[in-house]
Amino acid sequence: MTTGPGRPRLTSQRRPGQTTPEEILDAAGELFTTKGFAATSTRRIAEMVGIRQASLYHHFPTKEEILVALLEETVSPALAAAQRISDAPGPATVRLHALATFDVTQLTATKWNLGALYLLPELLSDRFEPFRTQRTLLRGHYRHLADLALAEIAADAGTTSPALADLPFRIVESAIATRADIERGLLPGPENEGAAGLLADTCLRALGWTNSMDEIRAESRALLARTVTGTSPLN
Amino acid sequence: MTTGPGRPRLTSQRRPGQTTPEEILDAAGELFTTKGFAATSTRRIAEMVGIRQASLYHHFPTKEEILVALLEETVSPALAAAQRISDAPGPATVRLHALATFDVTQLTATKWNLGALYLLPELLSDRFEPFRTQRTLLRGHYRHLADLALAEIAADAGTTSPALADLPFRIVESAIATRADIERGLLPGPENEGAAGLLADTCLRALGWTNSMDEIRAESRALLARTVTGTSPLN
Repeated sequence: MTTGPGRPRLTSQRRPGQTTPEEILDAAGELFTTKGFAATSTRRIAEMVGIRQASLYHHFPTKEEILVALLEETVSPALAAAQRISDAPGPATVRLHALATFDVTQLTATKWNLGALYLLPELLSDRFEPFRTQRTLLRGHYRHLADLALAEIAADAGTTSPALADLPFRIVESAIATRADIERGLLPGPENEGAAGLLADTCLRALGWTNSMDEIRAESRALLARTVTGTSPLN
Repeated sequence: MTTGPGRPRLTSQRRPGQTTPEEILDAAGELFTTKGFAATSTRRIAEMVGIRQASLYHHFPTKEEILVALLEETVSPALAAAQRISDAPGPATVRLHALATFDVTQLTATKWNLGALYLLPELLSDRFEPFRTQRTLLRGHYRHLADLALAEIAADAGTTSPALADLPFRIVESAIATRADIERGLLPGPENEGAAGLLADTCLRALGWTNSMDEIRAESRALLARTVTGTSPLN
């Protein structure tokens, strides 16, 4: 049994994935999030997949390249959704809620909690510049929508600080730490179900939205169905 | 020049700290947050302090013990403040705001951003159980104050979910990721000054507080002055 380029497998398939690179990413995702990035060797990843180390290097020349690919997966779906949502008509409050719902759902639903790797000092290296740029672009979409939403919420608003407009992005990323706490048994999981909606609500509350959330939630769901159906982890 | 037990120093003092253990913690704090925990050796820590490795082991038998001590410093001041604030009279909204202000200020003002280590898989080991317990106790204080605040904000409140009552703790800890972004040059620092107050405000906004924050902020400051003066990083 061979899967594209590289050597034949040593064993039958051990990891989920349609291609060898997908299997490598799945094994690395598990090891990086449960053992740590620095503590994981490419040899161990290859072993878990059941391929030779040389075959792994064929797909990913270094361990860093594997992490680059994994991190890209945590931000690119939200960035694509943000672009479609930003272009959609409608109130910014609804659009911000929709983006936050999509993003939290995605950060929570991926197989491994890869966002937990965002604070690794290793990410300071140049190789992660494209990931940092993507995340900064995503943050920019949040801030733009937050600025518009602030204007909608208080048409006579006084000063809106950049730190205020950055709150929704921070609130959404807090889903990463919450997920880590649940996976470590520090928080009960069941009571945190539906937390995507709660965090999206909180993004608006943080900006000063004081009315009922019911209408916003319904419009946010409808917007997501229109803009990101098929690409959405919600479906 | 000797500093308590252990061998004499190889060199003059290189790290800030009144005792050798403090110097070791300072050097380790830098290395763990800038190079990574797994990537840092006790040899490198000893070198940075200018002591022999044997002397380091005299104070901390393992690298884990150093991390235990560092993490304890990130949570014990807030836990002590939480106990005093919980015992203080007054509205829970004010007390929650005061605790959040204290905690964000402390997470932001420490020399190294040690909270960035919270998601390390290494923290799953038994040795970190006391740290996890302290953090869970702190979270419990937040949840208790949040439950009381929710009752104050909406006396006729319907369902209050545990996930809702957990929001303030999550919002406060988001200061860790924001600080990491600032230190990495991904966010401008100056515009995030005063963010402690903003995050404390957000804790109440998340729970549905819709009135002006001015009075709460003033009462929160006064409460902190009464309860944690001298122990506070605010002074």
